[in-house]
Amino acid sequence: MNERDALRALTADLPHAGDDAAVVDGTAITTDMLHERTDFPSRTTRYTAGWRAVGASLSDVAAMGAAASAAVAVYADAAFDREELSRFVAGAVDVCEAVDAEYVGGDLDEHVEFTTATTAIGDVTEAGSVTRGGARPGDALCVTGEWGRSAAALRLFERGGEDDIERANELFRFTPRVADGLALAGTATAMMDSSDGLARSCHQLAEASDVGIEIERDAVPVHPAVEAVAEDSAERFELAAHFGEDFELLCAVSEAEIAGVREGCPSGLTRIGTVVEEPDGEAGPRVLADGDPLPDRGFTHGDE
Amino acid sequence: MNERDALRALTADLPHAGDDAAVVDGTAITTDMLHERTDFPSRTTRYTAGWRAVGASLSDVAAMGAAASAAVAVYADAAFDREELSRFVAGAVDVCEAVDAEYVGGDLDEHVEFTTATTAIGDVTEAGSVTRGGARPGDALCVTGEWGRSAAALRLFERGGEDDIERANELFRFTPRVADGLALAGTATAMMDSSDGLARSCHQLAEASDVGIEIERDAVPVHPAVEAVAEDSAERFELAAHFGEDFELLCAVSEAEIAGVREGCPSGLTRIGTVVEEPDGEAGPRVLADGDPLPDRGFTHGDE
Repeated sequence: MNERDALRALTADLPHAGDDAAVVDGTAITTDMLHERTDFPSRTTRYTAGWRAVGASLSDVAAMGAAASAAVAVYADAAFDREELSRFVAGAVDVCEAVDAEYVGGDLDEHVEFTTATTAIGDVTEAGSVTRGGARPGDALCVTGEWGRSAAALRLFERGGEDDIERANELFRFTPRVADGLALAGTATAMMDSSDGLARSCHQLAEASDVGIEIERDAVPVHPAVEAVAEDSAERFELAAHFGEDFELLCAVSEAEIAGVREGCPSGLTRIGTVVEEPDGEAGPRVLADGDPLPDRGFTHGDE
Repeated sequence: MNERDALRALTADLPHAGDDAAVVDGTAITTDMLHERTDFPSRTTRYTAGWRAVGASLSDVAAMGAAASAAVAVYADAAFDREELSRFVAGAVDVCEAVDAEYVGGDLDEHVEFTTATTAIGDVTEAGSVTRGGARPGDALCVTGEWGRSAAALRLFERGGEDDIERANELFRFTPRVADGLALAGTATAMMDSSDGLARSCHQLAEASDVGIEIERDAVPVHPAVEAVAEDSAERFELAAHFGEDFELLCAVSEAEIAGVREGCPSGLTRIGTVVEEPDGEAGPRVLADGDPLPDRGFTHGDE
């Protein structure tokens, strides 16, 4: 059984699973695990790793429209280097501060490779939490921020010059969209973060809401860093829509409310498409981009 | 730097670290990571592993005197077996139910060996939370439950008969002392759980409270399962006091309040010693057992 099937099976067992975070008694809670080999290119600094790992969990809290309050992390490695550990903690503290949450420590563990498991919690406000399942035909599909920064960062890590590495680390340290999520709570009919990329996230939101989605390729806001690494517009869209790990928010909002809610979103809110009726049966494609089916896939990593 | 020194260094960096759980805005939060190789003997069932891993985090919430509300877990393995995953989740669900909390899922990850990272949260009640740092000379030192069950379980795992393995799994599935912790909140001056064993926990509580501790060996309540595996009283005490991972509570309570608070503790509350003045300088032993220094060490695992 692969990870995706296993996740599906798990979701069937647990009523609260299957969204970005679970909500229990007004508290959103979410957890993730990241590994050196699969999640952190070799010249990711420990400061960046701490920021990004804890940020990924804060992003899940943001996607529920909750106010992030605290995060913890397990830091596991084959050996403990005082400097590396301090830098990890500094990154974790700083990303929490960026969203008015508090990093409160965690646990250490010996492990064959650098591994971190992070958990964030947040308070659901009076506006309530937002799931993936409430989008309605006719809603506008909107996104926060600009897309493709993690893809661009990976290219820069691969290029490997000193400046490239420094910029790549900067790009990896995203600001979790907690403020935007809070602005959207009560207005967005469905919301999620984009850990798996725009294309896959559109499929997930459409499936959870029993709707279809139509997007326009040119409407997707592409991060400036993508321009510097992509050869043409097809590659730009590939990096912005399929790579993932941008940790932006994807949401459905009624047309009439876009302008009002955009005011409250510090990262901006861009309309990229429309929520439509669910396609007939299993046959029709759930997500279209400029009228063509948008495949439910992440980035193709080539031979790696 | 070893794990203990690294933890000390971390505690200095983070104001909330260093207790069983951090408390932020009335919510206690704690996280742990466990591995197949180091934490689960080879015939630990996945049901038991789910129970025990999530239980360890619930125990930390209990140690703060908070009401456990929810838990999440990352489940990582080299491959996902549907049955094993379901059993793990069933154990996690059941240990949460045993303490009136809710297991709300988590994350899956591919990893070289079975590894789980668990997080639990809980609500601090009006009685407030209890740290390790408030014990006062003259307080009675008390413990919940009976000690040595995990040590006995390990012996049974090693012995390896079918009945031994079944009994060992049962012993590994402890009930986190949430109800006892809630009863003790507001009365106990200091409290912690016994993940590192009675001896080490006494040292930790004494250090955090700037006091000394004197215990009586015969007063320590030993789990009946220890009788069956220990050869003599010295070995019984070794298993009950040094092995650890019993997840009982250790607390300081004023003498006058023991009887009253004991009523509310479903696992029982046994007085095993007294909190005394801090020994002079660094020289004196912090913890005495029957007048002799009680070493600050966990179980000696022999050659393993």
